[in-house]
Amino acid sequence: MYVVVKKDATPTEINELKQYIESTGHGALEVVDDGIRKIGIMGKSSISFKEDLLKFSAVEDIKKIGKSFKFVSREFKNEDTVIDVKGRKIGGTDMILMAGPCSIENKEMIMKIAKVVKENGGEFLRGGAFKPRTSPYDFQGLGEDGLKYMREACDKYDLVMVTEVMDTKEIVLVGKYTDIFQVGARNMQNFSLLKELGKAGKPVLLKRGMSATVKDFLMAAEYIVAFGNREVILCERGIRTFEIATRNTVDINGVALLKEKSHLPIIIDASHGTGKRSLVEPVTLGCILAGADGAMVEIHENPECAFSDGDQSLDFKAFEILAKKIEKTIEFKASLKCL
Amino acid sequence: MYVVVKKDATPTEINELKQYIESTGHGALEVVDDGIRKIGIMGKSSISFKEDLLKFSAVEDIKKIGKSFKFVSREFKNEDTVIDVKGRKIGGTDMILMAGPCSIENKEMIMKIAKVVKENGGEFLRGGAFKPRTSPYDFQGLGEDGLKYMREACDKYDLVMVTEVMDTKEIVLVGKYTDIFQVGARNMQNFSLLKELGKAGKPVLLKRGMSATVKDFLMAAEYIVAFGNREVILCERGIRTFEIATRNTVDINGVALLKEKSHLPIIIDASHGTGKRSLVEPVTLGCILAGADGAMVEIHENPECAFSDGDQSLDFKAFEILAKKIEKTIEFKASLKCL
Amino acid sequence: MYVVVKKDATPTEINELKQYIESTGHGALEVVDDGIRKIGIMGKSSISFKEDLLKFSAVEDIKKIGKSFKFVSREFKNEDTVIDVKGRKIGGTDMILMAGPCSIENKEMIMKIAKVVKENGGEFLRGGAFKPRTSPYDFQGLGEDGLKYMREACDKYDLVMVTEVMDTKEIVLVGKYTDIFQVGARNMQNFSLLKELGKAGKPVLLKRGMSATVKDFLMAAEYIVAFGNREVILCERGIRTFEIATRNTVDINGVALLKEKSHLPIIIDASHGTGKRSLVEPVTLGCILAGADGAMVEIHENPECAFSDGDQSLDFKAFEILAKKIEKTIEFKASLKCL
Amino acid sequence: MYVVVKKDATPTEINELKQYIESTGHGALEVVDDGIRKIGIMGKSSISFKEDLLKFSAVEDIKKIGKSFKFVSREFKNEDTVIDVKGRKIGGTDMILMAGPCSIENKEMIMKIAKVVKENGGEFLRGGAFKPRTSPYDFQGLGEDGLKYMREACDKYDLVMVTEVMDTKEIVLVGKYTDIFQVGARNMQNFSLLKELGKAGKPVLLKRGMSATVKDFLMAAEYIVAFGNREVILCERGIRTFEIATRNTVDINGVALLKEKSHLPIIIDASHGTGKRSLVEPVTLGCILAGADGAMVEIHENPECAFSDGDQSLDFKAFEILAKKIEKTIEFKASLKCL
Repeated sequence: MYVVVKKDATPTEINELKQYIESTGHGALEVVDDGIRKIGIMGKSSISFKEDLLKFSAVEDIKKIGKSFKFVSREFKNEDTVIDVKGRKIGGTDMILMAGPCSIENKEMIMKIAKVVKENGGEFLRGGAFKPRTSPYDFQGLGEDGLKYMREACDKYDLVMVTEVMDTKEIVLVGKYTDIFQVGARNMQNFSLLKELGKAGKPVLLKRGMSATVKDFLMAAEYIVAFGNREVILCERGIRTFEIATRNTVDINGVALLKEKSHLPIIIDASHGTGKRSLVEPVTLGCILAGADGAMVEIHENPECAFSDGDQSLDFKAFEILAKKIEKTIEFKASLKCL
Repeated sequence: MYVVVKKDATPTEINELKQYIESTGHGALEVVDDGIRKIGIMGKSSISFKEDLLKFSAVEDIKKIGKSFKFVSREFKNEDTVIDVKGRKIGGTDMILMAGPCSIENKEMIMKIAKVVKENGGEFLRGGAFKPRTSPYDFQGLGEDGLKYMREACDKYDLVMVTEVMDTKEIVLVGKYTDIFQVGARNMQNFSLLKELGKAGKPVLLKRGMSATVKDFLMAAEYIVAFGNREVILCERGIRTFEIATRNTVDINGVALLKEKSHLPIIIDASHGTGKRSLVEPVTLGCILAGADGAMVEIHENPECAFSDGDQSLDFKAFEILAKKIEKTIEFKASLKCL
Repeated sequence: MYVVVKKDATPTEINELKQYIESTGHGALEVVDDGIRKIGIMGKSSISFKEDLLKFSAVEDIKKIGKSFKFVSREFKNEDTVIDVKGRKIGGTDMILMAGPCSIENKEMIMKIAKVVKENGGEFLRGGAFKPRTSPYDFQGLGEDGLKYMREACDKYDLVMVTEVMDTKEIVLVGKYTDIFQVGARNMQNFSLLKELGKAGKPVLLKRGMSATVKDFLMAAEYIVAFGNREVILCERGIRTFEIATRNTVDINGVALLKEKSHLPIIIDASHGTGKRSLVEPVTLGCILAGADGAMVEIHENPECAFSDGDQSLDFKAFEILAKKIEKTIEFKASLKCL
Repeated sequence: MYVVVKKDATPTEINELKQYIESTGHGALEVVDDGIRKIGIMGKSSISFKEDLLKFSAVEDIKKIGKSFKFVSREFKNEDTVIDVKGRKIGGTDMILMAGPCSIENKEMIMKIAKVVKENGGEFLRGGAFKPRTSPYDFQGLGEDGLKYMREACDKYDLVMVTEVMDTKEIVLVGKYTDIFQVGARNMQNFSLLKELGKAGKPVLLKRGMSATVKDFLMAAEYIVAFGNREVILCERGIRTFEIATRNTVDINGVALLKEKSHLPIIIDASHGTGKRSLVEPVTLGCILAGADGAMVEIHENPECAFSDGDQSLDFKAFEILAKKIEKTIEFKASLKCL
């Protein structure tokens, strides 16, 4: 349910309304959508509550949202959401390119990679300090040291930092360093984590779970929004199917469908999505043309020597070419709109 | 196993070699690959047979093929296969756009659609006369009447005809009318049908089965080639996964991987691949950029009234826009190669 | 739609009714269900046709069937269908055990296996003469020679023969030898084949396709019934999922659901369903307890030397133990009904 | 890697050995397997470390474990693990029946259900106080109140309590009440949670993730064991496939395979596994016969009125029948071993 605010409502009237909504225990999510101000009402509401709201002078209309995912849907907000992180705009026409190593291995390597990312037009550095590994005996990441190295690299090269948080009790620690919290595929339905990130005050990049439907994915995003954080970036990274020639199956249908159903920005991670270096470029470009706003990609100076996921990492030369092609593809996509 | 032919071998020498191969019960598949003449040897062969071959003056070298799919692989033939059907070249840089109704409903409708296809630059008319329907109580197609109407439409508008053959006993009948045989997803591993189509003398458009891996798909194509027909067009049309928001899941990874592993042309059918009209455009364009050589798409004057698959059919206006965008995307893809 | 026949209707009245139904181009499928005679009406029917039927003296009532699968459903016929093949009753309380090699390799081996099957209480010999192989270069079966050897073995040991037919044009040939036609998983939606088998006059064992839902499976069975053959045996043999530790994933839910929704008998093939010898016993027994009426199992004297599918074949000793446990499990299942 | 201890090693010698292992930063997991004492060495180890160990008088031999899952495998410990919880033995021949509501709705209901569970031979009460719900707007459970009610019910009826913990920060709270921690399917690869439960000092019932392979599942169990807790109960609850007639697809192959590969006990949850009340009985019994040591089942006085998952809950009458049949099936399974 949401309130359509009258065009000529005064700030005082709007404030009064919001305060009333919150006083009844509901959340109030204010957005501007194609010039119209709307206030989403979070939580269950009775008919009498609706009647109470209609009495406020700021209220033009009250509308129900049919979908189970509500405030992430275009039914609530038709206009694309643009998230501003240190001046970069995710979800608009800017090229969004997030690159970096799977695992931060040491300070020198993350510094070198950060330089390469920046030189090729990437504005976001991704990298893992806490690694969710299938085996307890595999390298689990550098932990806080990794976060420190990455922060330093981001500061030196003016990059936005994206790193994974795996557990509620690490939110404060990771939040000390990162600009964007990443939620991994295995945690997409870790609802405790999603709820806490709803209150964490920084954008969240949410990866689709390996067996999550598009609806499950949007419901997970809805958790973060419902608990107070509207800055969610969706990331398609492949689903699990019977196909074994590739690590996962990138769901290009899902990319196009997410763009149709939701106003949130969406990023394609073809490194995890394919698991094969040679497929990263064609799948990234294809998904951008199908609707993704940007890409996340794993890079490494010597992919063969990477601590983890070397098979899917690009070397610096391949990354340079990919970055150029992404830029061209984003321009081309914009040009198609004018046809 | 294949023979690399000497550069200066004379036609007589080559002929002698081929005759010997065939006299031993093996097939001999001759190709020119990046200027080098090769002869694929079909069937099991002993070491002594290899030694016999080496004695021929035309033989430069003999090579094994590591993969289980052999003659459809780039290991055998690196150069893209280009199939010429009545002057249209499938697999090169031409725009390949195959469009038409799911089912041919009557003569008038197929005539009207043929005109629209031609006007928008499509050179191929697709349509079903024999329909594989999940229920025995659903419309099963017009049969031979459908084939006749379609042939007439193709002749009038100078289009190439593509239609499905469901059974070995229909090959002769369907072959009387069609230019390209289509094998449906449900028949991808109907090996009897594949073998017969190996001898049918016309190109085959082979659709990927709903639960076929990329390897299964290439092995099915290998059947057709192994039985004598090298003109196979692969068609990705989505696989079956847990996702229910779309009819199938288009495997964009598979499109890129097929392009990498095989020299055969590949077409994307996003109508069946998505099952949703609004997703046909983004998914078609994305898959072309990721490697597909062209597209197959279902169109209908009034999709709501279609006998079958109306939800996924484009109307004429949407088709016109799509056709333009496909053309632009093919140009754009070519331009990226020069980066 | 089906007619409930009056209890006291005379044979003449019933005949008159059936003749009328058939004269209108509909099929008439007569069954006795819990003592009530019913006539299924195949094909689309108008309201006026229903009214016409109500005028016949034999008609008690006319009922619609809600499901898309109609005459295979318990909504049409609640009582279990029992198929009699040479005195063996499939679908009742008899132990149904179909065993044999994946491929018939020579006459001696099928004779030896037939003896073992019989000695352990199996009444059905399965074996492949025409083999649907993923690769065109793999052993494709002995063809008609295989059929002959198998027939001889069945005659000598008084066994019922079950073998695969892959194509409409082989129905006559295979039908000369076999007692039961098997349709393989890859052909489950080869609708041309299903239609012809509807008229073939012998029972059909229909294997579930690797990506077929339970509904698709029942619709495929419906094809055979709709074209005139009510003797269909369903066979669960695993579906394709992301799990790679086993060849397929046996759908025990599906076994129980098929038993609930359909009156047709159901058999479990855990050899293909698991692909691992050690899992054949537990999965076979579990599925019988969950609802399957019997089992199909691959056996071989030296599984390591089998021409095909050796990993999933039991040796004779393991088969002997399995046969005993199947017998006990069928008894145990019957005893649970009295609880 | 593990040490085989000499038969005649004294407690002092064994202690000395263990202290040395731990002093080097490795974990030492002591088990007795078919009468042989073994000490598992957790963590990476050098060749020189192996040589050092061989010098200890208690060491008979040192063996490598080939599998990626090590200490949960039968390669390390062949004998079935039996977990004792308040006198009930999970993993032996006792009937293990865990029953209760999806969500605890109020004190009265959990009291009533506890009584029913006990009366029918169930010794474990399951129920959710913290609920992982797909939608943030659905009932999220009673929280600590639910835990209190459940504890009271367990104390009154002498039942073992099983309830879900969703997050590391709830372990202490949930641990105050529960006897067994449950990890839900969505958290199977929440590695932070698994690590903490490795130190939590109480048995863990680990549910298989919806897209987890058997190997992933065993690796998740390995996490708990590697961090110090050897009391892990595996729970198969269905995987996600293309089949939509049932909520999930119970992997009976997986049940049999887990039993073959691991010494840990395994439980079948056919309520979540099927999502359909009518399938719970056949699938539960089938999986027990295929290898499961016991069952978990959802029950409710009025399933239609349940706050969550009513479609899959049994009423008390159906539960009574199921409980009897489970008991008979466990007896029957034991009898088959003597064949």
